[in-house]
Amino acid sequence: MAEPIDFYFDFSSPYGYIASERIDEVAARHGREVRWRPFLLGAVFKLVGTAPLLEYPLKGDYARRDMQRAARQFGVPFCIPDGFPTSSLAACRAYYWLEDAAPALAKPFAHAVYRRYFADNQPIEPAAPIVAILDSLGMDKVAAEAALQDPAVKAKLKAEVDAGIARGVFGSPFIFVDGEPFWGSDRLDQIERWLETGGW
Amino acid sequence: MAEPIDFYFDFSSPYGYIASERIDEVAARHGREVRWRPFLLGAVFKLVGTAPLLEYPLKGDYARRDMQRAARQFGVPFCIPDGFPTSSLAACRAYYWLEDAAPALAKPFAHAVYRRYFADNQPIEPAAPIVAILDSLGMDKVAAEAALQDPAVKAKLKAEVDAGIARGVFGSPFIFVDGEPFWGSDRLDQIERWLETGGW
Repeated sequence: MAEPIDFYFDFSSPYGYIASERIDEVAARHGREVRWRPFLLGAVFKLVGTAPLLEYPLKGDYARRDMQRAARQFGVPFCIPDGFPTSSLAACRAYYWLEDAAPALAKPFAHAVYRRYFADNQPIEPAAPIVAILDSLGMDKVAAEAALQDPAVKAKLKAEVDAGIARGVFGSPFIFVDGEPFWGSDRLDQIERWLETGGW
Repeated sequence: MAEPIDFYFDFSSPYGYIASERIDEVAARHGREVRWRPFLLGAVFKLVGTAPLLEYPLKGDYARRDMQRAARQFGVPFCIPDGFPTSSLAACRAYYWLEDAAPALAKPFAHAVYRRYFADNQPIEPAAPIVAILDSLGMDKVAAEAALQDPAVKAKLKAEVDAGIARGVFGSPFIFVDGEPFWGSDRLDQIERWLETGGW
């Protein structure tokens, strides 16, 4: 079987959320798995010298409209949350903890976080709502709370962020197909053509 | 007939060039005309606080690859010119002069400028190459040289740039379909669906 597709995203990224609702289906149509890699976009903004999208004059207004239009296009329930943007530190740590502790739950957890924030307009920070999601998935609450402060989990997240930056990740979503980088949920159709044709 | 589609672009914009090779065909499939509006992206960068794309770390490297990939996808001859980015002042002025003086030549002129720069890797500034293109299209060279310094032409360009900013234009290409804004050559497929369905 071919290499999995790498899907980098920030839990606070609207376009990451929209992609998260489509990417596994696109990949599956071409016999591919997707490896989800949540990361912290804030770390990249500092490096690249960019800022959160909605903070730019003109561009921010457009982006608001564009993300709502993209969500409607694909039938994805979507709002711009009251607490936007948000820290996604707890969600990221929880994801990487789950990847070891209960790997089958990692994607369901990520979907639950994204939908809570962008469909239900509920906060995903600080730790309490993340622990509640983990609890609802059957994880032990005390173990979950401990995991969010576990130095090994923190180190794993830092290593993932550093690895993403080393591969050139500067936005969310950021997707690698056999080493080829694609930035943005609006690249999924292009990715589908890439998978169909083997690239051009 | 429905309102024309407004196509804002900077002659120094790779994605504007790629869109210029496709947009009239997309519009024609849906019985639409396209009104081309060259403008000066530099004026917008100051307002929005953004910078030329290739100047950003990581993002610049990606953009280089992405624009070449997009051009290949649609069979558009493309290079990143040696003198990139460039001023497009003379080309913009010439365009708006032609729109009055010989409107049927305005789009052929714009194609010639874009292809000279992005396909043939030849400069489009200062005035000399622009006057040469005008000359090749049958315009009088002396009149063309005078037009590039004509205060009325300069005022027309300034008014177009201001009007674009007032409508929210902050990048190139920037396209309005019945008032709906679309940013980027990668929005042409979405525009086509919008034209087909009347929007969503």
